[in-house]
Amino acid sequence: METTPTTTQTAKQPRTPMPLNGVDTPTLFATLDAVKHQPALAKFQFRATNRWQQGTHSRSRMESFHGAGGERKHVREFTFDADHPQVLVGRDQGPTPVEFLLHAIAACITAGIGNIAAARGVRLAEVESTVEGDIDLRGILGLSEEVRNGYEQLRVSVKIKGDASPEKLAQIVEQSRARSAVYDVLTNGIPVAISVSAG
Amino acid sequence: METTPTTTQTAKQPRTPMPLNGVDTPTLFATLDAVKHQPALAKFQFRATNRWQQGTHSRSRMESFHGAGGERKHVREFTFDADHPQVLVGRDQGPTPVEFLLHAIAACITAGIGNIAAARGVRLAEVESTVEGDIDLRGILGLSEEVRNGYEQLRVSVKIKGDASPEKLAQIVEQSRARSAVYDVLTNGIPVAISVSAG
Repeated sequence: METTPTTTQTAKQPRTPMPLNGVDTPTLFATLDAVKHQPALAKFQFRATNRWQQGTHSRSRMESFHGAGGERKHVREFTFDADHPQVLVGRDQGPTPVEFLLHAIAACITAGIGNIAAARGVRLAEVESTVEGDIDLRGILGLSEEVRNGYEQLRVSVKIKGDASPEKLAQIVEQSRARSAVYDVLTNGIPVAISVSAG
Repeated sequence: METTPTTTQTAKQPRTPMPLNGVDTPTLFATLDAVKHQPALAKFQFRATNRWQQGTHSRSRMESFHGAGGERKHVREFTFDADHPQVLVGRDQGPTPVEFLLHAIAACITAGIGNIAAARGVRLAEVESTVEGDIDLRGILGLSEEVRNGYEQLRVSVKIKGDASPEKLAQIVEQSRARSAVYDVLTNGIPVAISVSAG
């Protein structure tokens, strides 16, 4: 999501929001205005609980979150499995944990594209991304102190089509990257505190 | 996963691997030995493709990956939706992209616990984690230059039970953290390259 500066709207073409790309643009702008006047509404907390199943297989659930001034629930509980593949001695009951990072970055960039294109009056025809992540497992296997545990790098390739020039479409992708929560987390890192209750 | 140093096994209690916690420990150790002798086997590439559906809703697919010296496929294609919740003007067709980061870190820590406990001969009874992530959406909404786009911090609370002392169980969690690919990515960050094909 993004806001265009609203300082001199009369001097420019006035912004006449209308729903586009499945985005309720008037409500989106109203939400932005509401948060602008009441910043506490922007404080969110997302949550997941995860239970070990067996081996490297676990299952996460997400339902409640806090935001917009109160406790919220998704329309339903979402459940996801993760596992290691058979070649890594797992049972492949779900993707690996690191593959969910690929989904997260692609989905975040794409959601931003949906909102930004609507805000700019661009009708999207297609957005498709492929994400590749290179990882040398000698890190997590403890076989090399020079090899990091995580991905060496990610590459995201975005294909976008819509009723605007290639330049304008590319600018929408760039604006989405510049405001992406997942891109920020993956490129800059965040503090992660782990506490243990054992026994 | 982890390896215990194997330099002086004769001096210590010999490692007698047996399947435990659903982990095929003998195969796990054999895999470690194979990678030790042929480091190229450790080079993996994970992949996802994502297609925009409408609004902020997108869907990712994961099936193929490269690793252990060749092209691989999961036992089936995995598909995941992501969306923004209604309070953020989405249609809540899936969790938000940032919630998948919570699943990724919990699942990675838990998979490591499964393997490490088996390698150390500890039978697990229960592993449950809760993850909370605090985020101020004024960042992604473009309403404050002081607020970052991503999470301010994550908190992971791990509850673990098994047939070992609380100290030994806590050490297993700590070793999993120390070798977690997702923990490394989230805390240290990684390079993310984005390319665009528009029009």
